[in-house]
Amino acid sequence: MKNFQFVNPTKIIFGQEQIEELAGQIPSGSRVLVLYGGGSVQKSGLLDRVKEKLRAYTVGTFGGIEPNPTYETLMKAVEVIRSEQYNFLLAVGGGSVIDGTKFIAAAVPHLESDPWDIVKKQLAVQNALPFGVILTLPATGSEMNNGAVITRKEYKIKLPFMSPSVFPRFAILDPVYTYTLPPKQISNGVVDSFIHVMEQYLTYPVEGKLQDRFSEGLLLTLIEEGPKALAEPKNYAVRANLMWAATLALNGLIGSGVPQDWATHMIGHEITALYGLDHAQTLAIVLPSLLDVMKEEKQEKLLQYGERVWNLPHDMAADEKATAAIERTRSFFQAMGVKTRFAEYGLGSEVIEPILANLRANGMLKLGEKGLITPDVVRTILTNSL
Amino acid sequence: MKNFQFVNPTKIIFGQEQIEELAGQIPSGSRVLVLYGGGSVQKSGLLDRVKEKLRAYTVGTFGGIEPNPTYETLMKAVEVIRSEQYNFLLAVGGGSVIDGTKFIAAAVPHLESDPWDIVKKQLAVQNALPFGVILTLPATGSEMNNGAVITRKEYKIKLPFMSPSVFPRFAILDPVYTYTLPPKQISNGVVDSFIHVMEQYLTYPVEGKLQDRFSEGLLLTLIEEGPKALAEPKNYAVRANLMWAATLALNGLIGSGVPQDWATHMIGHEITALYGLDHAQTLAIVLPSLLDVMKEEKQEKLLQYGERVWNLPHDMAADEKATAAIERTRSFFQAMGVKTRFAEYGLGSEVIEPILANLRANGMLKLGEKGLITPDVVRTILTNSL
Repeated sequence: MKNFQFVNPTKIIFGQEQIEELAGQIPSGSRVLVLYGGGSVQKSGLLDRVKEKLRAYTVGTFGGIEPNPTYETLMKAVEVIRSEQYNFLLAVGGGSVIDGTKFIAAAVPHLESDPWDIVKKQLAVQNALPFGVILTLPATGSEMNNGAVITRKEYKIKLPFMSPSVFPRFAILDPVYTYTLPPKQISNGVVDSFIHVMEQYLTYPVEGKLQDRFSEGLLLTLIEEGPKALAEPKNYAVRANLMWAATLALNGLIGSGVPQDWATHMIGHEITALYGLDHAQTLAIVLPSLLDVMKEEKQEKLLQYGERVWNLPHDMAADEKATAAIERTRSFFQAMGVKTRFAEYGLGSEVIEPILANLRANGMLKLGEKGLITPDVVRTILTNSL
Repeated sequence: MKNFQFVNPTKIIFGQEQIEELAGQIPSGSRVLVLYGGGSVQKSGLLDRVKEKLRAYTVGTFGGIEPNPTYETLMKAVEVIRSEQYNFLLAVGGGSVIDGTKFIAAAVPHLESDPWDIVKKQLAVQNALPFGVILTLPATGSEMNNGAVITRKEYKIKLPFMSPSVFPRFAILDPVYTYTLPPKQISNGVVDSFIHVMEQYLTYPVEGKLQDRFSEGLLLTLIEEGPKALAEPKNYAVRANLMWAATLALNGLIGSGVPQDWATHMIGHEITALYGLDHAQTLAIVLPSLLDVMKEEKQEKLLQYGERVWNLPHDMAADEKATAAIERTRSFFQAMGVKTRFAEYGLGSEVIEPILANLRANGMLKLGEKGLITPDVVRTILTNSL
């Protein structure tokens, strides 16, 4: 096991009607800005309920944070907060709203330069506005971590940043809020969570036995519950397990003390930035092909994954087993309704060079747990994903 | 899944030579009191290394915190801290030193009554001195939770308390520190950790799929690594997995959203208070017999445990499978060198009534996840453990 530090101070408030706990989590006298995305939290009545629960506070709202939240939109919120002197933020939505809120929280007190530097120069921001989360879409895990991914529209780039100061103070997770999500968002969320686990699990063994077992437990649960979530949208237990899985998939725990990959994500971010595919769609295209290209380097973990997660027989030949494990993975994404080939999204080989150019421009020349995924390897991965 | 709140702000600093991170974790200018148990941290040189790392601070030491730390000893530390105005505590040792430090941290600012009230009246202490941990003995999980168990010698009682203010600020976990532990302490630690998991897992199903998978992962790891830790005391990976398992077994995560039992612990505490057996020894005596007596109420989870943890065949008859799972559990404790019968500790049926009397005196009349374990049921459990 590798040396590691792990800390995660976010308070999780999980379950039905836990919105009742909201007011008690925010310091009295706070000026609260509620941030959200499209109209769904308005239509569902959630936004009104939130305002009702916060009637003891000064409350403003800022809507319109888009999927793949953009610097351009977020800076408008920063201006509002600075001029109206809000001092507590509440993100109501999914990963995009939460990620956007993290950037805003870090950007508001960042007066010394353009806040884009936080992302571009990966500044270790020490200072950020406090914020809480009401989660409506289980997928990114952003509700219990200190990372975010921000898009700069004018440059067509999408980049991650992390900071110790942008852990949510609390996150309210009520599985009932997910009942009305469109099936596509459930599918995307399951695939996104699954691949978050794979990025931290499917590398090479370092005798991190608990990390492996926990990761396998998450994968098994996503495989069991994902299809049920589509078939029975109001099954509380299923939605609860998916919601908790999405959070635990990326709260730092399973990745502590083990190597991590993240090449699929970095390549996927460029696909979204250039062609606008959903985040999970890009991951579903890249991961199976990446595993196939890196099959030898990842063989030990692929075999363990095949046996423990897909129940492949112990005595199956190694190469056959690795191939079968990858094929099961691709089939699972497809069964969840997420397509795994560029062609299925109407894209062809013309995408390859622009993606490589973006990766090079963002300095991503040696991706993966061993830095072996160079632009040339990415070309092979993308070619195999057409 | 049940509704729950989960928060755990302790920073884990895990791995070889992580003591190098110590000084950076304590506010500069702090007056630090280092607390420890017997002479082993002196003999090993660890205490000197700690002092060396803290040379920029004012540092005092307080040794002699005993296994099953007593109110009587801990109050002496409280007096020292009050008179010498220490404002940061550092526990160097295992669960007893950490538990003792938690009580001390809460007791120092508690001036309105006898600090024993914190335990006796289960006060929700809001105020406590900050403290860190350097762990030398993986077992109790106290390094990453907010609970402690304190013994009052004069009354022969041992009682738990919890408080949101006694999470350690940080815990340094270096598996190398465990190389020199006597085998008995490793055995006890593995059994203690195993039973911490069982208290949170072996109840009744509530579709907490991740809690189950994580618990099973912990149990499987303890079963795999426990015997290796005895056979190869300097196997770093084995000691690392055990250390991380002991922490994760009782940091609040696997118990969130599921029913919990804890009857084995409550009965075990009385056995230690009355007869001085090691904590893990008492648990190893009580748990198998308790599972046997509660076999019907716990059947669903016992069958799942039998299949997933002990690899018992799916088509084995239910009662046979439950019995086999319990027998495997007992055999594992014995294989780890921890005896599972009162007779093996030189105790007989004379223990039963005093244990029941203590449980009654402490108000423990309805133990277990459903409150079904009355004193009469405890009598049966104890009789079957003779």
